Parts: sequence; structure tokens; C-alpha cells
Amino acid sequence: MELEEIYQLVEEDLAKVRRQIDSVTEVDSPHLAEMLRHVLGGGKGIRPALILLAGKFYKYNLDLLLPMATAVELMHTATLVHDDAIDKSSVRRGKPTVNEVWGEERAVLLGDYLFAKAGEFAADTGNLRVIILFSQTLQTISSGEIVQTDDAFKLEQTRQHYLDRIASKTASLFSLAIVSGAILSGAPEDSIKILQDYGFKLGVAFQIVDDILDFVGTEQEMGKPIGSDLSQGTLTLPAMLLLEQYPEDNPVKELFRNPDMPEKDKRDKIRRAIGMVGRSPIVKQCYELASDYCAQACRDLGKLPAKPSRQALRDLADLVINRKK
Amino acid sequence: MELEEIYQLVEEDLAKVRRQIDSVTEVDSPHLAEMLRHVLGGGKGIRPALILLAGKFYKYNLDLLLPMATAVELMHTATLVHDDAIDKSSVRRGKPTVNEVWGEERAVLLGDYLFAKAGEFAADTGNLRVIILFSQTLQTISSGEIVQTDDAFKLEQTRQHYLDRIASKTASLFSLAIVSGAILSGAPEDSIKILQDYGFKLGVAFQIVDDILDFVGTEQEMGKPIGSDLSQGTLTLPAMLLLEQYPEDNPVKELFRNPDMPEKDKRDKIRRAIGMVGRSPIVKQCYELASDYCAQACRDLGKLPAKPSRQALRDLADLVINRKK
Repeated sequence: MELEEIYQLVEEDLAKVRRQIDSVTEVDSPHLAEMLRHVLGGGKGIRPALILLAGKFYKYNLDLLLPMATAVELMHTATLVHDDAIDKSSVRRGKPTVNEVWGEERAVLLGDYLFAKAGEFAADTGNLRVIILFSQTLQTISSGEIVQTDDAFKLEQTRQHYLDRIASKTASLFSLAIVSGAILSGAPEDSIKILQDYGFKLGVAFQIVDDILDFVGTEQEMGKPIGSDLSQGTLTLPAMLLLEQYPEDNPVKELFRNPDMPEKDKRDKIRRAIGMVGRSPIVKQCYELASDYCAQACRDLGKLPAKPSRQALRDLADLVINRKK
Repeated sequence: MELEEIYQLVEEDLAKVRRQIDSVTEVDSPHLAEMLRHVLGGGKGIRPALILLAGKFYKYNLDLLLPMATAVELMHTATLVHDDAIDKSSVRRGKPTVNEVWGEERAVLLGDYLFAKAGEFAADTGNLRVIILFSQTLQTISSGEIVQTDDAFKLEQTRQHYLDRIASKTASLFSLAIVSGAILSGAPEDSIKILQDYGFKLGVAFQIVDDILDFVGTEQEMGKPIGSDLSQGTLTLPAMLLLEQYPEDNPVKELFRNPDMPEKDKRDKIRRAIGMVGRSPIVKQCYELASDYCAQACRDLGKLPAKPSRQALRDLADLVINRKK
């Protein structure tokens, strides 16, 4: 199953979200407009889809869901722009990053602008609960990243550490998206809780798969270089398992102990780590954990109204595991 | 007159704002807490004071004014943290900057966190008009800064260009502060308009004086190095007048035409520019423009209710001109 099939249920309205995101590029400053056109509109749209699908269970109100779907996608884009500036990444979604083209300074400012614009769209819902959740989620993401920065190139990290990190980095925004859709369509509290759980666990699974793909994907499919987590000193699940299962002569250990090694040696270590992960049962083990989260995510969906979006959420959970990009 | 005297009217509540800002440092992560303690609480508090003073004209409601005053001060701090990271500044308010102590990456993330926290406090007012204004102001500030980045080390800039720049950089937030205070205390629209005008023009005057002090102040009083605008290639009013009045053998021209000159030569040019401005009528001319804005700011205050805060706003305008730091 492809993403497009799952999106069918909300296809028209997703197109409206895309048009509203496009409209963000209509600003006075030609330079700002150019940067906005560069970064907007390239995503998979999974977060806006979550909002719209959640909205389908109760009183579907596009006037509220549309600004919030736009807000969440803009917030997501803003965090990517800042992440790339911080990590000095040069490629994202198959294109040069904002910091690569216009410098880190402008990337920081563009991210700020996008956060503010996202905040305005969130406020357009007129729903204070959603507006406050929006701000709290950005707090979770940024404070989580501060912790992640502290952890860079550290070898001693527990599984829980990793899960906390991806919870704040990815699951929090998935959760915000689906909870907003639920709240804005008048879902009862127990349904909001079930959907929140779904969004959170789907987000954890999504990020685990992302971290697997950083080892076994291709640059073309991923739109960014493979092995980028290791090169930034981020210890993800595959690297953790590699450390546990191959404690001797381990390229991750060598890399993390000498983060200032020459770029060429670094690339060698990363290549070796990627090779070792690919030949080991690690990929399978990581997928098992991700599948586990997806199963947990879907566990209580049966308690929600029997609407077509229920199946769509289940299909989405399958797709998150089976995606190649 | 000192700032403390003007603040008397709202002294107790300003102390509450400070306590609420302090409470922001109470977070789980010890590292985040340390960074928050480093940046919070060091400002002059002029923006929170504007909110509270504006609130005094009508139905003073501290439950609404307090979160908004906190929001505006946090937003101001966030912009300073990002500005310093972008400009690679090393000193602010007499202390090393966040980027200097913890690196640019963490400064970007800390700023994001503060924006989000500010947004949450703004949402705590429950007033959608104020919440939307809050987001729009951050858009104005960040897009204005993108334009400013484009203008770095450019000699051909009009007076209007400069005024637009300081309008978005400083006046927009002054305006947000006082307008929020007015809205949250139920001021009628014509009074909101008068206060908005006051806040905006006071902000312009404040920034002109800031730009003067970057030439004639002392590092000790300003809490940051003098001449920092020139060293970042920012053409402020004193530098513009210097270019106009001394077109030959002009250190600003030399600096801006060779921004990559050795640091030592750069410092020489800046020192010479500071000396020339100090010996010329430029400082007086700049102060005249700032005073003009302050006079315009106060022009319609007489139409507001005859409350003590009316005189406080007039005194504040005087102080903005006469301040030394």
C-alpha cells in the first residue's frame, strides 16, 4: 500500500493544506519568498494527514482542521531548518539545505519566521487547548534536542535514553497532530486519549524506522546522505545494538572516542558500521521493536467509531514499518 | 528621573513578573535550567512595564497582564539569544552570551524553547487577538532581520530603510507590549490606537538611542562592546550621517568595502568612526530625531483617561532619550 492510497480519504483536503502552505510564500520580501519556496511543500505530509484522519471520527470541521494541519507542517519544517543549521547538514529532501544556500544566520531566522507563522495558524483555530498544546510541543522538541546535543558522541546511553530522545523529537509532534484533529472535531476525552496514544507510538515507530533507514537506505530514496546520525555523533538504536553485540573492534566506539578524527577516517568508520549493521540481525531486531510500537499504537483503535479513517490509521501504521523513504 | 521611579506605579506587579520569569528556570533538565538562569532576569524590564502601565488606564486585570508581560519579556530574550548566535557576539548584559558559553547550536535551541514558552504564556491570556498579534510580531521581527542580513555591509541605504529596520526590530515589540496591555484591560479601540502609536514611536526612539550609545556609550554601561553594529556591518543612523557628512576618507566606507579586512584593521576603522562621530554634530542630530519620535509618541496621550500611568508614559519617553545604558 502506498501513502497516496491511505490519503485517499482526505485527498481533497490535503490538497487544500498544500495550497495554504503555498500561500505562506506570498510575502513582500522577494528574498524571504525565495527561501520559503525552497523549504515548503516537499514533505510527505504525514502530520497534516494525521490531523485530517483524526478529524474524520467525529464532527469533521475543515475550517478548524485546515489551519492546524498547516500549523503542524510549518512547525515541522521550522524544526528541520533549525536542525540542519545546527548540524551543518548540506542536503535535505534531495535539495541543498537553507544553511547551505543562504548561510546559518538566515536559516535560524527563517526557522523563527516559520515558527511564528505556524503559531499564527494554530491561533486561527481559536481553540486555546490546541494553541497551548502547540507551544508545549515546541518546548518538548527544543528541550529534547538540547539533551540530545549534550549526548553527542557519548557511548554510554541506555535504551530508555534513546526512546526519550525520539519521543520528544518525533512522537511529540505526531501526537500533537492527531490530538489536535481529535480536539478540533469534538472527540470525547477517552477517544482523544486513544488517538494520542496512537500518534505517540506511531511517532516512535516512525523514528526507529528513520534511524534504520539511515543505515540501510539509499541517499536517493532518503533525500539526504546515509550515516548522517553517526557523523553527527547521534547514537541511534542500530548503533546501540552494534555496540552491544560487537563490543570489540567496533567502528562506532572508535568514531565516538575520536570525534575529531580526519573526515576521511570518519567516513571509513561510518561505512564500516553501516556494513556491519547490514550483515547482522540488528536491522531485523530494530524492525521488531518498531513493529511492536505500531501494534501497540493500533491496539485500542477498535474502541473508536467504525469510520473509514480507522482502517486508514491501521494502514498507516503498516506503511510506517514498510516504507523505504 | 530613574527607571525605578517610573516603575513605582507597577512596582509590586513587576516583581511578580520577575518571579514568573524566574519560575521558567524550574525545569527537569539541569543543563536547560542552567542556561535559562543564565539568560533570564537581566533586562531593564521596559516591555513588561509598558504592558502593566497600559493596563492601568482601564480595567486592570493582573491575571491577564501577568502572563502577557512574561510572554513579551521571554520573546525579547529569545530574539537576543538568537541574535547573539547569528552575530557570534560574545558579551551581552555584561555576561558571556549563550553561544559563547554553550555554543551556537544550543543557543538556537534555547531561543526556540524560549519562543515556545513565550507562546504558551501568551496563550494563557486566553485572548485570541493578543495571541495572534504575538505570532505576527515574531514574524515581523524575524523577517525584518532577514532583510537586515541582506543589507549587511551595504553602503547604499536610505533613511527609510533604516527606519523600517528598527521598526521591525524594536518598535514592533514595544508596540505589541503596550497594545496587549490595552486590549487585556478592555481599552476602547481609539485608545488602543493611541497607545499603539505611542509604543511604536517610543520603540523607534529607543532604538535610535541604542544606536547612538553604540558609538558614544561605554562597554561597562552598555554591557556589550561599543561599535558592535559597525563590526557586524549594520549601518545605523550615526554611521549613515557620518557617510553623508564626510564622504571623503571615511572609515565606515573603507570598512564596508572590505569587510574581510584583518580584525586589527577593522577595530582601527571602528575606533576612527567612533571618534569622528563623537567630535561631530551627528550625535546631537540623532538625538534630535529620537526626541522628535518621543514627542510624536506622546502627542495624543492627553486623549487617554487622566490616570497616573499617563504621566509615567511621558516620563518614560523622557528617560528613553536621557538614558545612558
